This record gives sequence, structure tokens and C-alpha cells, in this order.
Amino acid sequence: MKNALCLSVCLWLAACGHALGAESQESAPVECEQWGVGEIVLDGPRDGNPFVDVELAADFTDRQNKRLHVPGFYDGDGRYVIRFSPPTPGEWKYRTSSNTPALHDRTGAVAAAPAKEGNHGPVVVKNGFHFAYADGTPYRPIGTTCYAWTSQPEALEEETLQTLAASPFNKLRMCVFPKRYKWNENEPQLYAYEGKAPNQWDFTRFNPEFFQHLERRIVELQKLGIEADVILLHPYDEGHWGFDQMSDEADDRYLRYIVARLAPYRNVWWSLANEYDFMLEKQESDWDRMIAVVDQTDPYDRLTSIHNGRVLYNHTNPRLTHASIQNGSAAEEAGRAVLYRDAYRKPILFDEIKYEGNIPSRWGNLSAEEMVHRFWECIVAGTYPGHGECYLSDDDVLWWAKGGKLKGESPARIKFLTEILETAPEQGLEPIDKWQYPNIVGKPGEYYLVYLGKESPSEWKFSLPRYELKEGEQFRVEVLDTWNMTITPVAEPFTIRQESEYLFVDKDGRSVPLPGKPWQALQITKIGSPQ
Amino acid sequence: MKNALCLSVCLWLAACGHALGAESQESAPVECEQWGVGEIVLDGPRDGNPFVDVELAADFTDRQNKRLHVPGFYDGDGRYVIRFSPPTPGEWKYRTSSNTPALHDRTGAVAAAPAKEGNHGPVVVKNGFHFAYADGTPYRPIGTTCYAWTSQPEALEEETLQTLAASPFNKLRMCVFPKRYKWNENEPQLYAYEGKAPNQWDFTRFNPEFFQHLERRIVELQKLGIEADVILLHPYDEGHWGFDQMSDEADDRYLRYIVARLAPYRNVWWSLANEYDFMLEKQESDWDRMIAVVDQTDPYDRLTSIHNGRVLYNHTNPRLTHASIQNGSAAEEAGRAVLYRDAYRKPILFDEIKYEGNIPSRWGNLSAEEMVHRFWECIVAGTYPGHGECYLSDDDVLWWAKGGKLKGESPARIKFLTEILETAPEQGLEPIDKWQYPNIVGKPGEYYLVYLGKESPSEWKFSLPRYELKEGEQFRVEVLDTWNMTITPVAEPFTIRQESEYLFVDKDGRSVPLPGKPWQALQITKIGSPQ
Repeated sequence: MKNALCLSVCLWLAACGHALGAESQESAPVECEQWGVGEIVLDGPRDGNPFVDVELAADFTDRQNKRLHVPGFYDGDGRYVIRFSPPTPGEWKYRTSSNTPALHDRTGAVAAAPAKEGNHGPVVVKNGFHFAYADGTPYRPIGTTCYAWTSQPEALEEETLQTLAASPFNKLRMCVFPKRYKWNENEPQLYAYEGKAPNQWDFTRFNPEFFQHLERRIVELQKLGIEADVILLHPYDEGHWGFDQMSDEADDRYLRYIVARLAPYRNVWWSLANEYDFMLEKQESDWDRMIAVVDQTDPYDRLTSIHNGRVLYNHTNPRLTHASIQNGSAAEEAGRAVLYRDAYRKPILFDEIKYEGNIPSRWGNLSAEEMVHRFWECIVAGTYPGHGECYLSDDDVLWWAKGGKLKGESPARIKFLTEILETAPEQGLEPIDKWQYPNIVGKPGEYYLVYLGKESPSEWKFSLPRYELKEGEQFRVEVLDTWNMTITPVAEPFTIRQESEYLFVDKDGRSVPLPGKPWQALQITKIGSPQ
Repeated sequence: MKNALCLSVCLWLAACGHALGAESQESAPVECEQWGVGEIVLDGPRDGNPFVDVELAADFTDRQNKRLHVPGFYDGDGRYVIRFSPPTPGEWKYRTSSNTPALHDRTGAVAAAPAKEGNHGPVVVKNGFHFAYADGTPYRPIGTTCYAWTSQPEALEEETLQTLAASPFNKLRMCVFPKRYKWNENEPQLYAYEGKAPNQWDFTRFNPEFFQHLERRIVELQKLGIEADVILLHPYDEGHWGFDQMSDEADDRYLRYIVARLAPYRNVWWSLANEYDFMLEKQESDWDRMIAVVDQTDPYDRLTSIHNGRVLYNHTNPRLTHASIQNGSAAEEAGRAVLYRDAYRKPILFDEIKYEGNIPSRWGNLSAEEMVHRFWECIVAGTYPGHGECYLSDDDVLWWAKGGKLKGESPARIKFLTEILETAPEQGLEPIDKWQYPNIVGKPGEYYLVYLGKESPSEWKFSLPRYELKEGEQFRVEVLDTWNMTITPVAEPFTIRQESEYLFVDKDGRSVPLPGKPWQALQITKIGSPQ
């Protein structure tokens, strides 16, 4: 946590030491980085049940009078913490409020230095259907999933981090609670609550050690440039621990607690649930309520979504920043994938498009070719796909659940795709003529990606939808073999003329020669305009 | 209007004749049919501007104290009308309210006889994604479009009605205002406002004759069993009349007036607009407002939708009863079409899937085969398609705009499809395994329609998704040639066994023989269970 967590100043005050408390207001400000984490640590009561008895928050105000109301939390051992992530550099003064006199009306400041190199801030929605870091750097989510990787033995968790470090993925879907499912029968090292495994829990008393571990892993992902898409609830419990069947009160208390702890980490996203509709004890109104609890607790407005089983949540809910969709079928073809953009008017993340692997379940045995194909279909639809992998293993370590090593052939090809995207226009790729040419995405007049998928043509007639085009403009074409990861430039540029109301073609009617194999794409870039 | 409009009792009262008014309360009740129209006609002021000066409504109450607040309207010549459509038979007492003493506090009754044969009531949403008439009779919308048919010369309008009578269509999209567009340059016979064509209108004074004509046409459609999907606003004006650029106040006044007049006709649906987003003077918030005006004015909650150009409206708006979608691309393939069901959780009507025809515009030159294909794709997606036709004609009478005669080859095939649907389960056809087999719809365990589209297989391996199936059950199969309109039964029934976690197949592995041609479908019906 060295780089990410800033110097935390602990104000060791006697619970009733008011004079000392006043003196402490003069102490040096907590120092941290913009979008980093500054911690205010206060000493408070250990008796009763501090998790439910004590309320604590602080109002932070900068010199422009921007104000954030930041929830605190009990971290055990009389330690009360307010974790603050300054959205702008400069001094942020705070004043606490609490129902406990020792924690009430404490003041101080957090001094936020400008963000250092590599700290681009949190990811936010940009240009309607895309994302960027807060400093404007483009962010193109290309994620994977290791649901229960933080519930594994230390060595396996470390291996997962090493694998991720060498992978193309910049987002990870991960559950807070452990997972009970086929190939997932081990107990975790730590539990979120005080009590006795497997199912005697005191849902009013959290286990700070569990959350400290989770936080450490999230910060390690942050160092790797990976967004943690934190799945707050999930149905994979099978009546074992009961974390999927807590009362409304317990759910809300849990959400407020975890949001207070995790929201300050700039790489945290909230995924209310995986397959929310498979948690049969909850109604849709419960999810509406819980989404509101997260939204109201989180001072930073971290990206928020909810992932479906068979029933899509209503992603038009304005508290949701993007649509997180499980639908392998929609990712099979851009003409399907693109439709969700119109329906939700938000970034579309296909967080589950089935898995590369070899398990018997039909959702877990895509070929690597099919997985890569779906990635490209989603990208040319102006949406973002998510990877997953389910290869059977003697040690029951399947990437999808526990992490470990990636065994499949798709990640290398996904890396090739991400490299293409890194050179594409920053604002994100948009469908050019959404209901007419579902396989063309780009920036009209400037840049096009054309994906030919399972077809094996020996040529592609150069033609582009009319938008932002003028006769005489010149385009460079590169043929991308998305499976063999090659980029082959076409020697001669193409000069366009208008052929019809809708299309521009090469002035001499030229086509792009192709190798007659599947998985080809074209990258078309404007290189010149007529004099 | 003989059958549809009931005996209307005109209470010819002096504007200030209070005693006479009281006496009139004793007059015989207005008689009509359940779901028919009973008219209360009152004499009132002719001076000033009755369209804006006079407010009039009546509260109707039945013997169970069900209450409806029904708006009245000025019909010209001192004639004030309250048009009431009783949702249940029996006596409905009314009391008027008005800002004009002569029209205020008038009482009386409408006596509603039970609905006669052929009167099934208005169409309402049923089973989430489907429709039925109010009496429970299934209604499967198979519509067509003649945008400006009521703005044509009498003879052409009559011809359109004759064509419709012989067609398979039970819904018609039609504009209130005339249309200005290619092949649509004639002035209408009547205008909705007082003033001078083409663009000097008094938007505070309606022309009752225009609305009387429109109502007559709607009632004629009703007699043919055709729902009138009334398009309240549209962008096809080209600066000619200005009906697309009225002020908010004028729009709202118009909506309240037309809803007061038309809502009582049981075959009226409200389509707020065609291509709403092409009316560039209006913001989306204007549409929200206008949808609310219609909803609040209409005592009968007629079906309500709004149709898009390029930007889909947010059909999750609870005031909208169904999604009215223009998207030819989505109708090309069931795996696309089905996605809107999840997003909107309402009936999905593809009210525009491009047109059979031969005009140069790419939206107006589908082959008949492609139109029929799209109909089947929509149907097997659990959605409803809409027909349209654009064949060039020396007289500029294209069905799409003016009506007249149907020239295409798709309507006969659409009739074949509707006959299949009439024998299918009443509750509507549902996708069986929505994201896995987009070409299978039906009622799990009982009835299946499988559409094979452009493929030309010589056999189809009998296999059905597992839901509601048991080993040993027997199914009859019929091969439907959707283009040649033939139904060919397979002689031997199929007996099923479970082959995998997901599928049942024929116990002997039999396939259904097919003719190796495109446009084939299979109708599979359970005929027996194991003893």
C-alpha cells in the first residue's frame, strides 16, 4: 500500500480528552496525493458494538468551498477511520460529526499534492458510451473475471497478481464474499463477519482483518493499472455461509461499511451483484434500494453497475453509470450488441460473454477463436467485452473463480486488440452507420475499423458510409489478422469518390486484397485531403 | 358510424335555461354499448373562442362507484360534446363541470348495454409482451402503414378501406396531420385549424369538420377490425404547414382536444410521433411532457407509444404501454429483435422494419421475400413486426403514404403467418431459450415455432430446449413453407428423450426432412404424454 495509501496521521486521543482534542486540531495536516487516500484515524470507544453504536463522518471543504461528506468506519481496537481521497490538489479542511462526543467536531486538514506520474485518477464515463481517467487519459475497459481470487491461499493470490501483471486486462471482476459452486469448495482464509464458519455470523460485527486484506489486494491491482470491479453481493453460496440471504438491514449496513472503506480507492467500481436475479430472496425493489444506499454513501460517485443472470436490470436507472450485461448471444454479433447502446444510452460493458474453456456447461466452453471473435464484435459495436476462462484443472484452480494462471489462447489476441485500440481515436469508437453496417466502427471521416468475422473473403470492396467524407480524400488501409496478430499495410492508398447517396468508394473501384481466411479486420485511416 | 357510435341524445337547452336544465336531468339516459360511444351533447356559448375559453368535463360513476373523469370538447356551432365509452355495462351517471354556468353541474346517465358480437373492447397489454382485447380475445398486432391516407381525396380513401378489408392487417399507423415529403405534395381536403393554407393558422381554433372526418375514418377501421395507431405529430412538414413547429402551448392544447375527441373510440392507440427525434424543434423533455398530457387527459388509458428515427425514446417510461421501434436491422434477425424485450419489458412492436418496394432510398426497397423473412424473425423473437410498402407509381400513390392498392407480394404471405398464429397458444409466443436458440418461440412443453430463415437445410435434427419437457412425450411436426404458403405434416410423430443437460431429441435420433429451400419453418405441437 506504500504508494497508494498516503501517510496517515493517527491522532491518539483519550476518548474524553477534550483539551487534547483541541490541541490535536493544530497538528500537521494529513498529506496525500490527489486521488490518493488520506486517513484520519481517531481513537474512540471499544465498548458496546462500535459497528452499530457509533456514527462517524467528516465534511471536507477545499478553498473553492467544494464540499464532500465522507463516511468513517470502525476498524477494530478502538480505531476509527475516515478515509479521504481528494478529488483536487490543495488543502482540504475537515470537521467530523459523530453521535460519540470523543469523535465529534474534530477538525484538521488533508494536504493533497498533485497526482504523481502514473496516477490518472478514477475512471469516469466520457463521450456517452466510453470512459477516461479523471485526468483525461483514455480508458478502454478490457476486463477479465476471477470471482473469488481474494478468498484463496496467499500463494495463489500472489500468482493471480503476477498473471494479471503480464495480461492485457485493465479491469477485474471480483467478489467480496467467498464463492460456493462447482470447483469452488474451499473455505476462505478470512470472513467478513465475526462468528463461526460456515454459517454462524454476527451480521452486526464486521471483521476488519477481512476488509484490510481485501483493500490490500485492491491497492495491488491499482498498482498494476487494473480497475477493481467489486461485486458486492452474489448468489454462489448454496446455503453454506448465508451471505446471500442477509436481512435488508444487514445488507444495507454491509453496503455502508464497505463503501466507507473502499470508495476512497480510485480503482474501485461497484458492481451491486453478479447475476442479481439469481438471488431469489431479493426483489427488484431491494436492488433499487441497495443501489441507492451505495450511491448515497459514496462521496466519490464511483462507477456503479449491476450484472444479470437471465433478467436484465433496468439500466436506465440514473444511479447506474453503465450497463453491465451478461449475454453471450449479444456478443456473438455486432448487430446485436449495438442495440443495447440505444436502449440504455450509457457505456455497454458485456461483463460476461461466456468463457473460453472446456467445462461441460454451455457457458464455459468457448474456443479461443470464438472468444476473440466476440471481443471484436463487441468492439465494432461501440461496446466493451469482458474475458473469462474456465479450463478444467487437476487442482480445481479455474481462472474464472480462483485466478492462478491463464491457460487459454485468447489473452494474447486480446492484447493485440488492445494495442490497436491504443492507437485509435481517443474519444472512443462509435458505430458509423449503426443499423446498416454493424461491422464498421470508428470516427467518421478519420478512422475506421471494419471487422469481417467468420467470413473468408479474398477481397473487400473499399466502401465507407458517407458521414464526414469528401471526394478526393485519401485513406491508408491495414489488414489486421486478429488471430495471427499481424498488421499488413496495403501499399497504395485509396482515394474516394461518392458512389451513391449512402456510400463512398475508391475512385478506381479498387478493393482491398484479403487472404481468404476468417478473423480479418481492416484499419482505415485518413492520410490526406484534396488540395 | 351506425354500429359504433351509439344513439346520441342532444339536450338542446338554452344557455341560461336553468329550469330546463334541471328538467333535462330527467330525460332518458343516453344508450350505448359497452366499449361503444355515448355522446352527451350540450348547447353552449358561441361567442369568444370556445376552444380556449370554455372548460368542460364530466365525472361518470357506475353502480360500483368506479369513476371516470371524461373531458369534453367544442364541436363548433355552439355544440359541446362529452363522449363517453363505458368500460363496463350498466348505468353510468354523470355530472358535468365547467367554467361556463350553462354547461356546469349538468347531470344525466349513460346506459351501457352488453357488448354485441364482434365488439371485443379495446386492446390491452397482456402477459407482459402480448396483447388481448378487453374481453380476453387474443389480439396479435400485425400492422401496416398509410401515413396520410385520411388526407386524400374521398375516392382514394375509400379504396384504401377496401384494400384494408381484404388484407391481413389488424393495425394501421396513420397520421393526424397531412404529410409533405417526396411523392406527397398534394394538399389535404381539410385542415385541423381555422386559417389559410398553407401556413396561416389560428392554433387556438380547431376545425371540427377535420376531426369529424378523421373520426369517421377511425370508426370505419374499427368496423374492419383494425386498430388505428394514431400518429399525433410527425416531422414531414418541410416548413410547409408548420404543424411540426407549434408552440408547447399549442401542442398541449391540440393533444387535449384530440384525446377528448378520439379516446372514446375503442380502436384508438396513441403514437405520440413518427420519428420523434427528427422533429428538431422539440427536446426530449417536450416528449416527456406531451406523453404526460395524453396520459392525463385520456380516461381510458389507450395504448400509447412513440416511434423513433435514429434515437430510440426511453421506452421504460411507465406511461408507454409498449415499445414502438423503427429499426430494420433489428428485424433482420431474431437474435437481435429479442434483445429489446429484456431492455423494455413490454410488448415490442417493430412499427418500421423498412418497406417492400422499389424506391431508391435504402429504407424503401426490400424484396417481398425479405419483408416476409423479417416478419418471421420478429415473430420467433416474441415481438411483433409491421408491414409497409413503397412501390413507385405513375399516380404517386404509394401505399406507405397515401394508401390505395397493395401491389406487393408480402401481404399474402403475412396472411399465411397470421393464420398460423391464430391457431397458436392464446397467451402469445415466448422465446424458449432466448439467448441460445433465437429461432425458437412457443409455449414450453406444448408448442414450438422454429424458423430456419435463409438457410436451406435438407433436414432438421429434432431437438428442443429442455424446459417443461419429459421423456416419452410425443410431438407432431408440420413443415411450413413460409413463402409458398404450404403446410406439410410429417407423417410419424416424434417421441423425445433427454440428450443433454439442455436438449431433448427424438428417441431414435430422427430428423425432420426438409426441401432444401429457404424460408422454411416448423410447427411442433405436443400430442401425447407417456402413460
